[in-house]
Amino acid sequence: MLRDLSGDTSLMSLNTATVREQWDLKEIINGCVRHKIGGISPWRDQVSAIGLDETAKRIEDAGLRVTGLCRGGMFPAADAAGRQANIDDNRRAIDEAVTIGADCLVLVVGGLPGGSKDLADARGQVFDGISAVLDHARSNHMPLAIEPLHPMYAADRACVNTLRQALDMCDGLGAGIGVAVDVYHVWWDPDLEAGIARAGANSQLLAYHVCDWLVETKDLLLDRGMMGDGVIDLKGIRTWVEAAGYDSLCEVEIFSAANWWKRDPDDVLKTCVTRHQTVV
Amino acid sequence: MLRDLSGDTSLMSLNTATVREQWDLKEIINGCVRHKIGGISPWRDQVSAIGLDETAKRIEDAGLRVTGLCRGGMFPAADAAGRQANIDDNRRAIDEAVTIGADCLVLVVGGLPGGSKDLADARGQVFDGISAVLDHARSNHMPLAIEPLHPMYAADRACVNTLRQALDMCDGLGAGIGVAVDVYHVWWDPDLEAGIARAGANSQLLAYHVCDWLVETKDLLLDRGMMGDGVIDLKGIRTWVEAAGYDSLCEVEIFSAANWWKRDPDDVLKTCVTRHQTVV
Repeated sequence: MLRDLSGDTSLMSLNTATVREQWDLKEIINGCVRHKIGGISPWRDQVSAIGLDETAKRIEDAGLRVTGLCRGGMFPAADAAGRQANIDDNRRAIDEAVTIGADCLVLVVGGLPGGSKDLADARGQVFDGISAVLDHARSNHMPLAIEPLHPMYAADRACVNTLRQALDMCDGLGAGIGVAVDVYHVWWDPDLEAGIARAGANSQLLAYHVCDWLVETKDLLLDRGMMGDGVIDLKGIRTWVEAAGYDSLCEVEIFSAANWWKRDPDDVLKTCVTRHQTVV
Repeated sequence: MLRDLSGDTSLMSLNTATVREQWDLKEIINGCVRHKIGGISPWRDQVSAIGLDETAKRIEDAGLRVTGLCRGGMFPAADAAGRQANIDDNRRAIDEAVTIGADCLVLVVGGLPGGSKDLADARGQVFDGISAVLDHARSNHMPLAIEPLHPMYAADRACVNTLRQALDMCDGLGAGIGVAVDVYHVWWDPDLEAGIARAGANSQLLAYHVCDWLVETKDLLLDRGMMGDGVIDLKGIRTWVEAAGYDSLCEVEIFSAANWWKRDPDDVLKTCVTRHQTVV
């Protein structure tokens, strides 16, 4: 039984990357208010550009739910000093997520350290890095959300590439950590339905992100599609997500250098809202 | 215990796509002989261009082992007539593979039929399509090799995207079918070692293809790397492959529109041979 999104823009959240080339974070917050969007998920560089406290105040004044902060992670490094620097940065990210009242800190865990071909080692570094910050997250009541990334990013962005792998890692880490499910990364997975159910059963389903997979895709990173323009069965996946107990917002996150990042941002938000109501 | 490839070019096979932009199949066969390459795996369009019987004769005269014919598959279609046409084409592909004495017919199974977002249905169509040709393959003693393709091709090329998924399909289909493992498609998979061992234990490991994953990758289809130029742990994966009992050739298959397809083809083959002896 799917929730009816057709009349309710409050169940949409905007990941701020979606209009990052057109607006700063102040303008994005104002845009969310104008389009009656219920939530927001900002990126740390955009927060930093206008200031953390300023961000927190503006989001609170706007009445927006913060479905996540993007992003922590990027744990692997070629040496111990690099790994420690990444751990320190993740502690700061946790603090920032607390300050803006985020539901979770999204972790894009990182790929192979420079020069390495050892995925198992990189995955071990990710586990160790998260372990090193998890108590800090727990004591600040900030859930961490591992986002499994599409296998095409295994080398350079995230060596956690399936939902099952992310959940196995969560189980090894204990309380205070779950997953962010982004359809772009997981839509192809034959085990997706089972993974979503497992995440829900263990209260590990912390965020749900939507966009679409274009055929054909012209760029590995910056050619995501608007919901409805691609081949992902969005309603089918949302059915699994809601059956697993997820009752939070659907976060729209579109990296689109050649298309949506070149359009009028108010038109982009209008399209996101319309598509959220009709095809998500 | 890895086989020593350093002095033995006979354990390399050349997938003919690697120099397809420079040479026709006659020239490629001659090139393999000149570079003392032990095997070849031609594509059907290249075979067709010089003729099937001519291909068979030239390959036999050259003394090349045929590690596979590329390719059957592409089963899903929007209607029954389309599916039947695909089945008929796969029967012809089996006959062609027999004529050239191939070790197997490689199956790139196909993606979503036009207009569909139903991956489960597409996967069912693949299963049904293979079922429809499997007796023909068995009676002609031509093994079929499902090649799981990287998840970035799930929509448009192959909806079988992990080795586990391919092996589950094989188990459902019975005798006469196995898998082709191409490092480009599976290197990221956290279950890869287990999948290779499973395939070997069931005598389903029919072909092994190598190239490399470049960071960064500029094109989803045509930017594969030469072995050693990317991040895939080739010796590590070959260790698993040989531990699983694989004792056939390593097939080099590189689609590279901007680089290797623009080079002198004799230099490409020379590089393939050198890299095969040193980094594969």
